[in-house]
Amino acid sequence: MKPAYTATVLLLFGFLQFARAQNGIVVFQSDFGLKDGAVSAMKGVAMGVSSELKLFDLTHEIPAYNIWEAAYRLHQTVSYYPKGTVFVSVCDPGVGTDRHSVVLLTKSGHYIVTPDNGTLTLVAENLGIGEIREIDEAVNRLKNSNESYTFHGRDVYAYTAARLASRTITFQQVGSTVRNDVVRLPYQKADYANGVLKGTIPALDVQYGNVWTNIPKAMLAQLNAKPGEAVRIQIMHNDSTVYDKSVRLVNTFGEAPIGADVAYINSLLNFSIAVNQGNFSGKYNVFSGADWKIVVSK
Amino acid sequence: MKPAYTATVLLLFGFLQFARAQNGIVVFQSDFGLKDGAVSAMKGVAMGVSSELKLFDLTHEIPAYNIWEAAYRLHQTVSYYPKGTVFVSVCDPGVGTDRHSVVLLTKSGHYIVTPDNGTLTLVAENLGIGEIREIDEAVNRLKNSNESYTFHGRDVYAYTAARLASRTITFQQVGSTVRNDVVRLPYQKADYANGVLKGTIPALDVQYGNVWTNIPKAMLAQLNAKPGEAVRIQIMHNDSTVYDKSVRLVNTFGEAPIGADVAYINSLLNFSIAVNQGNFSGKYNVFSGADWKIVVSK
Amino acid sequence: MKPAYTATVLLLFGFLQFARAQNGIVVFQSDFGLKDGAVSAMKGVAMGVSSELKLFDLTHEIPAYNIWEAAYRLHQTVSYYPKGTVFVSVCDPGVGTDRHSVVLLTKSGHYIVTPDNGTLTLVAENLGIGEIREIDEAVNRLKNSNESYTFHGRDVYAYTAARLASRTITFQQVGSTVRNDVVRLPYQKADYANGVLKGTIPALDVQYGNVWTNIPKAMLAQLNAKPGEAVRIQIMHNDSTVYDKSVRLVNTFGEAPIGADVAYINSLLNFSIAVNQGNFSGKYNVFSGADWKIVVSK
Repeated sequence: MKPAYTATVLLLFGFLQFARAQNGIVVFQSDFGLKDGAVSAMKGVAMGVSSELKLFDLTHEIPAYNIWEAAYRLHQTVSYYPKGTVFVSVCDPGVGTDRHSVVLLTKSGHYIVTPDNGTLTLVAENLGIGEIREIDEAVNRLKNSNESYTFHGRDVYAYTAARLASRTITFQQVGSTVRNDVVRLPYQKADYANGVLKGTIPALDVQYGNVWTNIPKAMLAQLNAKPGEAVRIQIMHNDSTVYDKSVRLVNTFGEAPIGADVAYINSLLNFSIAVNQGNFSGKYNVFSGADWKIVVSK
Repeated sequence: MKPAYTATVLLLFGFLQFARAQNGIVVFQSDFGLKDGAVSAMKGVAMGVSSELKLFDLTHEIPAYNIWEAAYRLHQTVSYYPKGTVFVSVCDPGVGTDRHSVVLLTKSGHYIVTPDNGTLTLVAENLGIGEIREIDEAVNRLKNSNESYTFHGRDVYAYTAARLASRTITFQQVGSTVRNDVVRLPYQKADYANGVLKGTIPALDVQYGNVWTNIPKAMLAQLNAKPGEAVRIQIMHNDSTVYDKSVRLVNTFGEAPIGADVAYINSLLNFSIAVNQGNFSGKYNVFSGADWKIVVSK
Repeated sequence: MKPAYTATVLLLFGFLQFARAQNGIVVFQSDFGLKDGAVSAMKGVAMGVSSELKLFDLTHEIPAYNIWEAAYRLHQTVSYYPKGTVFVSVCDPGVGTDRHSVVLLTKSGHYIVTPDNGTLTLVAENLGIGEIREIDEAVNRLKNSNESYTFHGRDVYAYTAARLASRTITFQQVGSTVRNDVVRLPYQKADYANGVLKGTIPALDVQYGNVWTNIPKAMLAQLNAKPGEAVRIQIMHNDSTVYDKSVRLVNTFGEAPIGADVAYINSLLNFSIAVNQGNFSGKYNVFSGADWKIVVSK
């Protein structure tokens, strides 16, 4: 290998390391809610590690024990933060069991500190797995916290995330690389065949009651439906049909009358359904999760 | 013009510019709620512009599509932040229609980034219009976001606010000054004539159920009612009378028995009504908005 | 006194002063909720004092006027923040009455700015009283706010906390040390005698509906019950028995079947009760406060 080439490779490697280096930002997600001091205690622990950190929230309103939604909210948000941001996600119904505590470095350069219980399903799928390290709790655990069995979010996850984000420890010092893949939740993927689109409802746009699907804009294009045209939408919960209507595809809500059902592309570029200035989920009793299916045809 | 005078004017102008210069603080308001990743994604975009920014929330619990309440919460809060603070307000039922995206610089030196749909009504009225610039989305839009029709809050408003607050762009670089006034929502203003005060209920003190009016303390003084005295309060919803009682005016809730109706001056120095340690709104079914009217007399 | 000894004492004193010095972190708690601009206005005032401050929230969902819960949330959280952190707690049903506004410096080196109405009960008991200063409102009050009677949280507490945290004022400049103790709320303390544990339910783990008691792990040990064994738990509201069952003591929820009642040690190292992946409070109508009692025996 020529020296110049070697130097270029080393420089490139150095640049990649830099590009993925922790940036002092920590973003917290949990199913704790905001009514007690749990979220604040996690931030206090992080401030105790370094008061230079910048702390943000993703959401703390993940429905209790709903790992799927935790996975989805990470998917929805992670890539909008700069590379090097460290996320903490604590939705941990199996706390104290043998699930592993890990830090995932995605190929996009984001770190996610979490119990490996399915929370990483969509981020791993969409941003790619760079490296997975299992947290060595003998080292990465808040001092004097070892008598407490139940608050890993504060004592292990927030503490490790803060140490990583502040460069108190390197990514290597998190622990060993014993695992090559994350635990993944099963779900039906978006599919197109013979003029029929299939998918699931991974989440609602909760505040407005809009229904989001996992069918991407590009796949919708295969149906050859244009803005202004109507498509047939069927929604099934398990085996029972909950909704079956012809709905107009719009670019913006302003194109449709108030109160009309509309289909549109949401901010994540996925096919979605709404009642214009109303609540689709509430009106039709349609909710989200792996047991919901949607079929779209012309 | 004498040179010394010119210099003084220039210095003063320079000082005013300085006093109004962006200070790195961004405050977010929306009707998104906190259950998903929308608010967090806006902050991620801002951190991607500059990790030196200081990000805060006004509220994200504006009732969906309620522009009046968005206007009122800005009015309630903006002036308590230092000059140069940049606010983002996204309550945008008309997203995708021809409403304009603007940044208002108030005479008080605060910046507000928002769809110009009435959100600026009260801030423009109370803090004054310094300058209005329409956002040039060809320049001020998150890269690679142009396929997304529906999340201007993240792709345009948060992005522009962060660039402005971090001085990545000047106020001039936001876009052109095509408009001299903001869109204003109609509402009944506070009025005194012949011993009778009239006004509206612009907002509730939601957490406590207290009723706030737009009648200022100074106007109440014209009624010549003193603390300890009773006034007659009538509350109408459209044309129907919902409440008609004689209520004692107090300086502090401690002066009245628990459970008593009391009239007082709130923290915005406006005439207000409460049940001491109770919920006036819930007890009497009184709510807020332009369709509520209040009449106060001795 | 020998010079070396004096020097050591002075150094030690200096170190203690340093260890307790304000660190620029302010943590806000209130019963304001997050639906209006009240919390944000407090932060705006703090930013006006110094934009270098780091502002966090404990919770703003303290039930309206519930001083006990404000006291408990502080107890749950304060010690996880570094020494020198300044807390603001505004749960103030007696605003405007003769309750005193104080800053407590705990023996652990944390500052708490609050009306002295019982809010400091548990922090004083558990972290110890270092010094109490009464806020001199003639000096420590936001300028031009003296016509407003009702928002001490913004005009006095947030303002004083920000000035203290940013070292704009010293702790001495808060005001005089006229009081040696804080106002304390009465409640039944944890007790062990003759094989019977007694205590109260100071709080619920709201998000999950778990019931927390004030009986510490060490006191439970006197009962000599081991993980895997069952204990009898009786819960009384005033004089009526609401729950009386034999419940298994577990180290982690993973040890018990889903839906089972379990007893465990929570993250504050206190005896607690839950339905595994369910809601104990909702299932059995058990709530928290000084009027709830719990008895545990073998």
